Amino acid sequence: MKCKAMAVTGKGQPLKPLVIDVKKPQGEEVVIKVGGAGMCRTDLRLIEGKEPRPGFSLPFVLGHENAGYVYSVGERVPSDFKANDRVLVYAVWGDLLCRYCWEGKYMLCPNQRIPGQSYYFGGYAEFMLVPSFRFLYKLDGLDPVDAAPLADAGVTSYSAVKKAIPFLRPDSVVIAYGVGGLASYGIQFLRILFPTSRIVAVSRKKEKLDWAVELGAKKAVLPEKLKEIVNQESKGLGASAAIDFVGREESTMNIARSLENGGAIIEVGMEGDKLSLPTFETTVWQYQLIGSNYATFNELAETVDLVKSGAIKSHKKKISLADANDALEGLKTGTVMGRYVLVP
Amino acid sequence: MKCKAMAVTGKGQPLKPLVIDVKKPQGEEVVIKVGGAGMCRTDLRLIEGKEPRPGFSLPFVLGHENAGYVYSVGERVPSDFKANDRVLVYAVWGDLLCRYCWEGKYMLCPNQRIPGQSYYFGGYAEFMLVPSFRFLYKLDGLDPVDAAPLADAGVTSYSAVKKAIPFLRPDSVVIAYGVGGLASYGIQFLRILFPTSRIVAVSRKKEKLDWAVELGAKKAVLPEKLKEIVNQESKGLGASAAIDFVGREESTMNIARSLENGGAIIEVGMEGDKLSLPTFETTVWQYQLIGSNYATFNELAETVDLVKSGAIKSHKKKISLADANDALEGLKTGTVMGRYVLVP
Amino acid sequence: MKCKAMAVTGKGQPLKPLVIDVKKPQGEEVVIKVGGAGMCRTDLRLIEGKEPRPGFSLPFVLGHENAGYVYSVGERVPSDFKANDRVLVYAVWGDLLCRYCWEGKYMLCPNQRIPGQSYYFGGYAEFMLVPSFRFLYKLDGLDPVDAAPLADAGVTSYSAVKKAIPFLRPDSVVIAYGVGGLASYGIQFLRILFPTSRIVAVSRKKEKLDWAVELGAKKAVLPEKLKEIVNQESKGLGASAAIDFVGREESTMNIARSLENGGAIIEVGMEGDKLSLPTFETTVWQYQLIGSNYATFNELAETVDLVKSGAIKSHKKKISLADANDALEGLKTGTVMGRYVLVP
Amino acid sequence: MKCKAMAVTGKGQPLKPLVIDVKKPQGEEVVIKVGGAGMCRTDLRLIEGKEPRPGFSLPFVLGHENAGYVYSVGERVPSDFKANDRVLVYAVWGDLLCRYCWEGKYMLCPNQRIPGQSYYFGGYAEFMLVPSFRFLYKLDGLDPVDAAPLADAGVTSYSAVKKAIPFLRPDSVVIAYGVGGLASYGIQFLRILFPTSRIVAVSRKKEKLDWAVELGAKKAVLPEKLKEIVNQESKGLGASAAIDFVGREESTMNIARSLENGGAIIEVGMEGDKLSLPTFETTVWQYQLIGSNYATFNELAETVDLVKSGAIKSHKKKISLADANDALEGLKTGTVMGRYVLVP
Repeated sequence: MKCKAMAVTGKGQPLKPLVIDVKKPQGEEVVIKVGGAGMCRTDLRLIEGKEPRPGFSLPFVLGHENAGYVYSVGERVPSDFKANDRVLVYAVWGDLLCRYCWEGKYMLCPNQRIPGQSYYFGGYAEFMLVPSFRFLYKLDGLDPVDAAPLADAGVTSYSAVKKAIPFLRPDSVVIAYGVGGLASYGIQFLRILFPTSRIVAVSRKKEKLDWAVELGAKKAVLPEKLKEIVNQESKGLGASAAIDFVGREESTMNIARSLENGGAIIEVGMEGDKLSLPTFETTVWQYQLIGSNYATFNELAETVDLVKSGAIKSHKKKISLADANDALEGLKTGTVMGRYVLVP
Repeated sequence: MKCKAMAVTGKGQPLKPLVIDVKKPQGEEVVIKVGGAGMCRTDLRLIEGKEPRPGFSLPFVLGHENAGYVYSVGERVPSDFKANDRVLVYAVWGDLLCRYCWEGKYMLCPNQRIPGQSYYFGGYAEFMLVPSFRFLYKLDGLDPVDAAPLADAGVTSYSAVKKAIPFLRPDSVVIAYGVGGLASYGIQFLRILFPTSRIVAVSRKKEKLDWAVELGAKKAVLPEKLKEIVNQESKGLGASAAIDFVGREESTMNIARSLENGGAIIEVGMEGDKLSLPTFETTVWQYQLIGSNYATFNELAETVDLVKSGAIKSHKKKISLADANDALEGLKTGTVMGRYVLVP
Repeated sequence: MKCKAMAVTGKGQPLKPLVIDVKKPQGEEVVIKVGGAGMCRTDLRLIEGKEPRPGFSLPFVLGHENAGYVYSVGERVPSDFKANDRVLVYAVWGDLLCRYCWEGKYMLCPNQRIPGQSYYFGGYAEFMLVPSFRFLYKLDGLDPVDAAPLADAGVTSYSAVKKAIPFLRPDSVVIAYGVGGLASYGIQFLRILFPTSRIVAVSRKKEKLDWAVELGAKKAVLPEKLKEIVNQESKGLGASAAIDFVGREESTMNIARSLENGGAIIEVGMEGDKLSLPTFETTVWQYQLIGSNYATFNELAETVDLVKSGAIKSHKKKISLADANDALEGLKTGTVMGRYVLVP
Repeated sequence: MKCKAMAVTGKGQPLKPLVIDVKKPQGEEVVIKVGGAGMCRTDLRLIEGKEPRPGFSLPFVLGHENAGYVYSVGERVPSDFKANDRVLVYAVWGDLLCRYCWEGKYMLCPNQRIPGQSYYFGGYAEFMLVPSFRFLYKLDGLDPVDAAPLADAGVTSYSAVKKAIPFLRPDSVVIAYGVGGLASYGIQFLRILFPTSRIVAVSRKKEKLDWAVELGAKKAVLPEKLKEIVNQESKGLGASAAIDFVGREESTMNIARSLENGGAIIEVGMEGDKLSLPTFETTVWQYQLIGSNYATFNELAETVDLVKSGAIKSHKKKISLADANDALEGLKTGTVMGRYVLVP
């Protein structure tokens, strides 16, 4: 079978339409008719050639944030995966054979493949092949266009929030640093999972500050005002935890200036090359920095179930697959409120 | 009462002999006849004026690593503190009135005082005043000269080792980065508390490498060989945890290159201004960096009890208080194997 | 100074009015003018002689759940404790000298004293002596009559809820077993701290079931219906955690039949002599039973701050100290919705 | 293919020789030539009909503790499983499809099958069929007769020890209650993983007490002496943790009398119907009881690797499969030091 896709064909080049082959699924494999494919800032870095991943060779079909419909299945796929079932695609395909996979930590698997990142066949296409039904979670009544961003932005921020919660007291201040696709979920998860905390959101873009407050932040501030506002909200104690959706020297340094003794930075973003912390404060006040990559499959299930319950809204902008390059431009300027979702 | 001390009287200047007043102890206070005062690299930074602490004003008597004999006590000191009892001085004097002190985390107390660091009256003297018997732990038969380094080097490395252990499997590689006074205890604690692990010690100084092996390291290497040796010892997995006794950009960066997925850096040293980590690896492989400052009073008690049991040796060089400036020179060159202990 | 009190003068006897001496406070001591003293089922067991405590000898003034006004202070009480300041009395007075107290776990201190339990001078009186200002927390604008039950019912259930939360997923079922003074707080804390969970409350008394739902339970059932309702709410998985406010063989056995694999029982109640669990299920499905006694001082502070924020309501019935025996009768029949609070 | 086995053919009856069919392996399946099959007290309960398990129907081949040689493999078994490779059989075959399996907690899988317990085809036979290579761990040079007991006695006690360790301080007393096949490993694991602790072993059988000391216990005592000896060894504090290899009302009650405040009982044994704890002490002193069933696959790998390193000895008695009934008699009287291992 053949299908249309938008592919990277040269470093830094616009995507080009391409017709690609879709294999007939065998064994545990499942072919998905793509319903929606979220666009992520990682995609920009991949196009620019800034994030060299094993398995990335041109031409390459991006898209690691996918939801859709079961189209055809291999002979070992259980019968409860039926054609047209709506599914979300778990994006870090572990080898299911290593120490990390044996504990469900596929994101630590040294042989992992990520569709649209280290595996050539992502969701910027009409169809995609998933290597095992084990990487699919049923969406039931959820619309794949709404659900697609959950496959990365949603679950990644859910897992980060879960790592932050043990550091919070009921009246703690918690920082959401950077307001984009991930934080749009992260702020909502904090709101619903730890409603007594005070969320202080940070963005360089003034138009994002209002949005952060709509999502549930108590305060939203420019980076240079962070320390002052955190001090105010925490009576001088500092923030008990922060989720850094940016990942630059400035973001970690800025957070460190506003952190409570014993506080934690959950590190999610990857915009810069280095993360830096002030030595004296970090050691003396026992800060922790905790890398957080993606989520477990159980966390993905919990995320989807929370969204099914109506507690969380997806902020997305639907866009036709053919217009992917326009969306990439919008993503580059960082003005979109939520996630672009490509629809074939 | 008056006594002799060696004091900082000018930035970057040699210490000078000084006669100081020793107050009569009141309430919970105890005056200690100093038996031994360990010398720490922090002392060098304080003399150079590189580590500005509240409460540090000239003239200033250094010495935060102290053991000695009960000399006189205030009226509210329990009767089981008797004259000549050997005691170790817990060095981070919390205010006993805050959220952190209520949980025994005096090292996070915002009003903490440290003798010889932020409180003018350290142990480079014949006598010292301790504000409460609550900061003293009985040494029983241990010699204060042997025990003095436990008050910082010992307990700080014990607490760091305890933070590293949850990250270890029986056959894990664990890195001890930097081989000096603290690591001389840290390597021994790892050896006794988690004997199946493989300790890889790192030092720039070749003469320290042999010493690390004597202390219990399986391998001891120059920084540039770390990755290779860790790979060898861990069959390519990396180190499950590292204790960084240095605290510079190079140390954290170098450790990060040798860390297992999900591994942790326990941060103890404070030699440089910044700690840096590579963004992509830290986030994707979920590294953790955990600041570790000093120890709780219970950890001090556990440290002393381990030493009482004979499991751990103090590596120290006894030196007369009057010769403190010579010892500071030795400390600066970093050649001493273990700790200088000043004896009045 | 002398004051009126209601005292136990004989095993199983009604309380009798008594005039008692109130010492002038010295050192860290504070005399409190009692504003409210909550009544607890433990008081019934103490009167009946069923819970022999060291230090309990007749005549004895009960009352471990106290709030009031600073009346006079010893010479070492900080000046921010002023006359008429409203305060809550932390009830487990550790010795501040042991391994447990050094970590803030006063409830594990072997030398602890509890006013009105193991120390003769509780709050069923006009005044009471507190051995240190360290056991007082400022109520600011809260009314001592409303706040008194926080000193045990409130903080004990808060601490139990905090121990349960790590076992919960967003859609978990959590059981509140027994609906009385403690659960009236416990259900509210679950509601505010983990709002997505489904609380199933259990009581033998039908009139309490409606109350539990008002407090925030999703379902409230008789003990014999627990398993069925939990299965329904959890799609057959069982409850992720339970807080047992009863503490009898039947309560733990009944909970164990409704528990999820890997689930936990937080044990708070002490009505029966023994707690029992089925061997096979407990071992094979890895249940945990976790004793939970009182709370830390920080947890008390967090509890009071939550109540100050308006998130939690105290359900109490004010009663005159002189009518204490009537209230004890009501407590015995278990019909009161909330807590009786004695007011001098 | 056919092979010989010893089977349960009637409740409470001696085992009978039987010829059984061995299926040709398909997909991920592997047929193992049994090298050794350990005998466990669970086997006695199964023969007596005391532990009804789903899937247990007569005739039934016992044996859940198996090691052997790869004999033939299905078409999806990776090529690094070659004929004659020595392997240990992980015994709790999860469905690999549920929330628990996704985290590697196969012992909590509601659809788990255990060979020789809930699945008819255990290791009391010449060959056995394993449903997936994922349940096999390479033994390399280890002899399957030595290794067989690791598949249950070894890994179960290893996992229990790992659950106990977070409760230990360097000088803690830890109780090993019951000295049999599991404890023979458990005591050694405590010895090697936490060497500074003081192990107090308990048995009703005097001949086992000496054995416990050989294995590494500091003291070994009859149950009625436990409290006295623990007090002595812990200076009155009590044991920080206990591993209960028995699982009766008396064992948990007896341990509870010797436990330190905040201490834990790791529950492994399943000899009696109920586990009981004293309500007041359990709640007030915050004891924890933690069910521990089997181990994760990673824990099995760690156990085997520790044994490969030479740190741990298997105490076993080799016996011919045909003589299985004699061994069951020995097991019933509880006199064997270590594990009977059946060899076809």
